[in-house]
Amino acid sequence: MTRAEIIEQIKIKRSFLCVGLDTDLKKIPPHLLKEEDPIFEFNKAIIDATQDYCIAYKPNIAFYECHGPKGWESLKKTLDYIPKDIFTIADAKRGDIGNTSKYYADTFFNYLNADAVTVAPYMGEDSVTPFLEHSNKWVILLALTSNKGALDFQFLTDSSNEELYRKVIKKSQKWGSESNMMYVVGATRAEMIGKVRALAPYNFFLVPGVGAQGGSLEDVANYGWNDDCGIIVNSSRDIIYASQEIDFGEKAGERARNLQLQMAEILENKGF
Amino acid sequence: MTRAEIIEQIKIKRSFLCVGLDTDLKKIPPHLLKEEDPIFEFNKAIIDATQDYCIAYKPNIAFYECHGPKGWESLKKTLDYIPKDIFTIADAKRGDIGNTSKYYADTFFNYLNADAVTVAPYMGEDSVTPFLEHSNKWVILLALTSNKGALDFQFLTDSSNEELYRKVIKKSQKWGSESNMMYVVGATRAEMIGKVRALAPYNFFLVPGVGAQGGSLEDVANYGWNDDCGIIVNSSRDIIYASQEIDFGEKAGERARNLQLQMAEILENKGF
Repeated sequence: MTRAEIIEQIKIKRSFLCVGLDTDLKKIPPHLLKEEDPIFEFNKAIIDATQDYCIAYKPNIAFYECHGPKGWESLKKTLDYIPKDIFTIADAKRGDIGNTSKYYADTFFNYLNADAVTVAPYMGEDSVTPFLEHSNKWVILLALTSNKGALDFQFLTDSSNEELYRKVIKKSQKWGSESNMMYVVGATRAEMIGKVRALAPYNFFLVPGVGAQGGSLEDVANYGWNDDCGIIVNSSRDIIYASQEIDFGEKAGERARNLQLQMAEILENKGF
Repeated sequence: MTRAEIIEQIKIKRSFLCVGLDTDLKKIPPHLLKEEDPIFEFNKAIIDATQDYCIAYKPNIAFYECHGPKGWESLKKTLDYIPKDIFTIADAKRGDIGNTSKYYADTFFNYLNADAVTVAPYMGEDSVTPFLEHSNKWVILLALTSNKGALDFQFLTDSSNEELYRKVIKKSQKWGSESNMMYVVGATRAEMIGKVRALAPYNFFLVPGVGAQGGSLEDVANYGWNDDCGIIVNSSRDIIYASQEIDFGEKAGERARNLQLQMAEILENKGF
């Protein structure tokens, strides 16, 4: 999917919402467990109920992989089911030496046909660039994550008083462009989003941590905004586990719709 | 597998060799492609031929995952086939927020029943500790990798002139112990192995980059040695792709045997 197509979807749907498909057999409504593929049945209902309110879906691969081959089948069926005008993000946080990253790129872009994959930066340029060789596909590089452990290394400062996450953004700006690279920038540190925006004015940011992890949507929009909107806000648990009953799809749809309405107002206020 | 069991295997086999199972359909002998599961047939022959000379196997997950569910089946069959006294490393380089890393741990330790998994440190403590909650299982944390991109971030120095890879080792020393944590320390920078050894005197190091990537076995042993040997040296392509013919197993066995003989001499010289 191209940058122009993503922007078009934001304009059409009046939304920059990504729904995280962190589908956990222990958390989905129990009545689904009798289905042949409970994970896919759950995702299907969530997608049916939320697709009008979001512009992206983000399955986190850990929740599928732990079921072995069957989990990968559920994941593939889910990706295939998502309407083609919705951006798909394989949240995999992969990264290996160049020769190996090529195979991960093959997994997510060819086998699964996702539009984007999240990549960890620790191993540097040659671990990231193989993902950038696929046209109209995206790397979403971890910059500033929303978890507590982000404080362990991402804020380490060098002698010029520059934090690691800033180094990651500055270096990686030379690896890709605003048409094939986004950054993960956590919402739990909203004021930091502004600092990242200054370093990467044109890239889209994937922002986790709104809702369950505590960030505010208004803050994220104010700090992260650029001329093309520039932010995709992810919500997982708050939406997909809105109900444990037969109405779980409907309730998830309501939660997504609530966020979409807030986003529509923000887009309106920004004159977008 | 416990630390004592690993050390015992090194003593019995006179080897600290890990064979990397980076099994690539494009590189295996063409006659195997007519088999129902070429990847497993290849691995089976490699394991049969090399198991007397190594103490560990390390499948890199990228090479399996790119085949979808079928690749995961080949991987599972491979892990199941490896003799139980040989240490198994899922080279996955995973790492996510705590709630998610738990599921990755579940994949590699419960579903695949590997002894160890490689983990990327960028997301910090809560991305690593869920892997440490499984008894007799191991985290092998990326510290200093053997690729060119290692120079991008791992050597960034803070105001006290300390590099990121040193920070990773020092911080993570508090997360686990020498009984559940090892480090990836690349052989392409052999003198660095000594620096890492000074920071982590008791942990085992998994050392890639001997052979194809250019490091010397003697240097690795000299810089990395501790009282319990303390090093596991990985070789992948040099061993498993020794021949493209019907004799590929035999040739791989010879290459592994050559390395084992060099290792036996090192162990002898060290009085181990």
